[in-house]
Amino acid sequence: MPEESYHMTPQQFREYGRAVVDWIADYYEHIEELPVLSQVEPGDIRRKLPHQAPAAPEDFLSILDDMSRVILPGVTHWQSPNFFAYFPANASGPAILGDMLSSALGVQGMLWATSPACTELETHVLDWLVPMLGLPEKFLSTSTGGGVIQDTASSSSLCAMLAARERATSYQSNRQGCNGRLIAYTSNQAHSSIEKSAMVAGIGVENLRLIDVDDCFAMRPDALAQQIARDRDARLVPFFVSATVGTTSSNALDPLAAIGSICRENNLWFHVDAAMSGTAALCPEFRYIQDGVDFADSYTFNPHKWMFTNFDCNCFYVSDRKALIDTLSILPEYLRNQATESGAVFDYRDWHIPLGRRFRSLKLWFVIRHYGSEGLQFHVRSHVALAQRFAGWVKQDKRFELAAPAPLNLVCFRYRGNDGQNEELMNRLNRSGDLYLTHTRLNGRFTLRFCIGQTNTSDRHVEQAWKRIQEEASQL
Amino acid sequence: MPEESYHMTPQQFREYGRAVVDWIADYYEHIEELPVLSQVEPGDIRRKLPHQAPAAPEDFLSILDDMSRVILPGVTHWQSPNFFAYFPANASGPAILGDMLSSALGVQGMLWATSPACTELETHVLDWLVPMLGLPEKFLSTSTGGGVIQDTASSSSLCAMLAARERATSYQSNRQGCNGRLIAYTSNQAHSSIEKSAMVAGIGVENLRLIDVDDCFAMRPDALAQQIARDRDARLVPFFVSATVGTTSSNALDPLAAIGSICRENNLWFHVDAAMSGTAALCPEFRYIQDGVDFADSYTFNPHKWMFTNFDCNCFYVSDRKALIDTLSILPEYLRNQATESGAVFDYRDWHIPLGRRFRSLKLWFVIRHYGSEGLQFHVRSHVALAQRFAGWVKQDKRFELAAPAPLNLVCFRYRGNDGQNEELMNRLNRSGDLYLTHTRLNGRFTLRFCIGQTNTSDRHVEQAWKRIQEEASQL
Repeated sequence: MPEESYHMTPQQFREYGRAVVDWIADYYEHIEELPVLSQVEPGDIRRKLPHQAPAAPEDFLSILDDMSRVILPGVTHWQSPNFFAYFPANASGPAILGDMLSSALGVQGMLWATSPACTELETHVLDWLVPMLGLPEKFLSTSTGGGVIQDTASSSSLCAMLAARERATSYQSNRQGCNGRLIAYTSNQAHSSIEKSAMVAGIGVENLRLIDVDDCFAMRPDALAQQIARDRDARLVPFFVSATVGTTSSNALDPLAAIGSICRENNLWFHVDAAMSGTAALCPEFRYIQDGVDFADSYTFNPHKWMFTNFDCNCFYVSDRKALIDTLSILPEYLRNQATESGAVFDYRDWHIPLGRRFRSLKLWFVIRHYGSEGLQFHVRSHVALAQRFAGWVKQDKRFELAAPAPLNLVCFRYRGNDGQNEELMNRLNRSGDLYLTHTRLNGRFTLRFCIGQTNTSDRHVEQAWKRIQEEASQL
Repeated sequence: MPEESYHMTPQQFREYGRAVVDWIADYYEHIEELPVLSQVEPGDIRRKLPHQAPAAPEDFLSILDDMSRVILPGVTHWQSPNFFAYFPANASGPAILGDMLSSALGVQGMLWATSPACTELETHVLDWLVPMLGLPEKFLSTSTGGGVIQDTASSSSLCAMLAARERATSYQSNRQGCNGRLIAYTSNQAHSSIEKSAMVAGIGVENLRLIDVDDCFAMRPDALAQQIARDRDARLVPFFVSATVGTTSSNALDPLAAIGSICRENNLWFHVDAAMSGTAALCPEFRYIQDGVDFADSYTFNPHKWMFTNFDCNCFYVSDRKALIDTLSILPEYLRNQATESGAVFDYRDWHIPLGRRFRSLKLWFVIRHYGSEGLQFHVRSHVALAQRFAGWVKQDKRFELAAPAPLNLVCFRYRGNDGQNEELMNRLNRSGDLYLTHTRLNGRFTLRFCIGQTNTSDRHVEQAWKRIQEEASQL
């Protein structure tokens, strides 16, 4: 034993751990008293921090005090039930505690051998989700496919594009680089991560076709088919289509069956990005949103958005795991081991970009068991019902209009005025601290987005938000 | 309020949170009683899990019980002080608790505006580390550079290669894709992530030159310069060099000054991968390992390896943040905001691949404050001193030999026998559960790696490990 140690002892951990648990419980009990959007100016937080790191150890409880004193004023409260901005990024009790156990075990799951439970629980829980979400059986690990947890849909979509790139080049692009003739497709409403993937993967955004959408902001399959034909005529090589179940901007639902059918005819990799809205498929009555997902080569959704599992927890499925693994596998000597060579196990390092990986399935397992599928369904249904009520109020108030269909939990709407008035309305609401909502542009016009999905959002929060929106509108 | 809720209440969170804190403290108190390497066979863990997800909620304490019953047998104990395999992946009390607060706040730090404290604390703590590690001032956010937390060095190295790719193509590769003529360089001992980056980025591994190493497994600058000249003569376009401070295989130290000087002459992006060993630079006496880092355009090291900060926490620095941001920035309408447009803030989504990001700087801040720089130095020095003692024992025992220099905390050694005997020795030790070590190949020969860096490893663990190695060697 060293003469001296600076480590926290298990006994200290018990004491400080309780203090942190209480801090968190207090935070959740009082979160509605805090302004949802942080009111600080750039530099305000840094100014409260010492210029240099401390040379000597500091007392743990003084560090914890600084969470309230220094950090909280600079926090935008994503866990506030009055958070209606962007998309939800849910935490929940079972997720926080499952994630804490992951931190404490501190295992690396890069190989099955480096902690078998990390790999097997992940495979198993992702298999659980396949029937829970009504996804095709080909995504099961017991079939030709399988699921893996990644950090974000951005990373999953990149991996899908990479596997498609390799398949389309007869597995030459990893060796030789890109040839500049591969063409990818998505709608002009798709998430920015598809564009970023085309940049990262060496495809080039000039080779990503942004297909036109219909009046509901959904990809037009006829426009897709025409563009593919034009590209083939130009001797280019179409290879990848990404469709969206619930776009970030307006929750538009691309018609997967029509798009998937075009992909099959043209032998293109078909990727489906259901980042937030995929969670709705927990409820059979909402599963129509993914009609046609049977055509998909890959599929991604985020339990860390609307399924009460804190970030990061993205689920990525492929129908042909061999294509993914052949794309991303490298086996240096220092990672060789008997289990890998037996072929009997998954080594998840071959399913994504990073090598290291934490035990993320614990929090997802905790969430699914804590809520049960009936609990998850209950809260998703509640959020959708609340959004539908909100959309009804918008329609009834002549000063407002809906700006897009609201099939699930996102309502896009406008004050019937100009862009400046809508922006002013948003800024006033956000500055008040009472709620937080964000915007997009639809058909070139400034549009308010009201997204209901925060874990603890219930009727009274939505009612109060609508009251505040009406009040501020009266002041315009 | 909904009629019914399945959420864990704050009061329940207090109770279950304490149970989890105690579970973790108990785990650490008894960790040495557990076999370090999990002894299960493929499928053993999955067989204990129900085939389907539960429909109804389960009691939290029954889920926690399953941590011990189902999960622990399948865990390889990376936090055991008898873990000497691969590299350390340290957890510590302050890191676990800081990370728990990150889970609970559940903020998204993609933009400054989405939680200013998440961005500002990260920038600030990464600035703290620059003088702590003796890194060049150009990496400071107050200079032209800056630091960001990523998930792994794999991802950081990929971002470095992408920024280099863009710079070398006058910012055309994101738009047009790759041209197949860009050439990257690293040593044949570099981490597999450099090869993976060349695949992902569309460079192609055939365009990644693996430069020869010297007798100490360090890159030969003369061989690098010659290869660059050959490639230029062939009208190819050298653009990127990655050097390693402490290779994964044997902890070899590439000569940064000589390599950096070649990069500067040839206008190549110079990336330095110090994933594990960068932490040693906390101690001034070990800073020689990075002599020449002043030449670097980018630098990466992992507090989640040897700096007591649990995964994921990779620190990535660039000297010219504009080059990185111009490479990775996309600004869709739904992310526009006043702070971004003011130019006064960092939006970290533009510094890496994913869009979403959690508040990872909390755990790093907690660690630095809990230990102070003197505490961090103390434990790093202890580990290095233990490794040097271990290397001394190897040299004194005629049955063994050192296989490479051991400048820091990794000792590569062999039983003076054939490969099969060394593999047998390793497997016997690992199967015993008493310790866990892994292997590599150096000069084609099977070599044992003994890496000392787990948070709680102290004299008696290393002494006992050496005793067990000697015992098993006697049985060969």
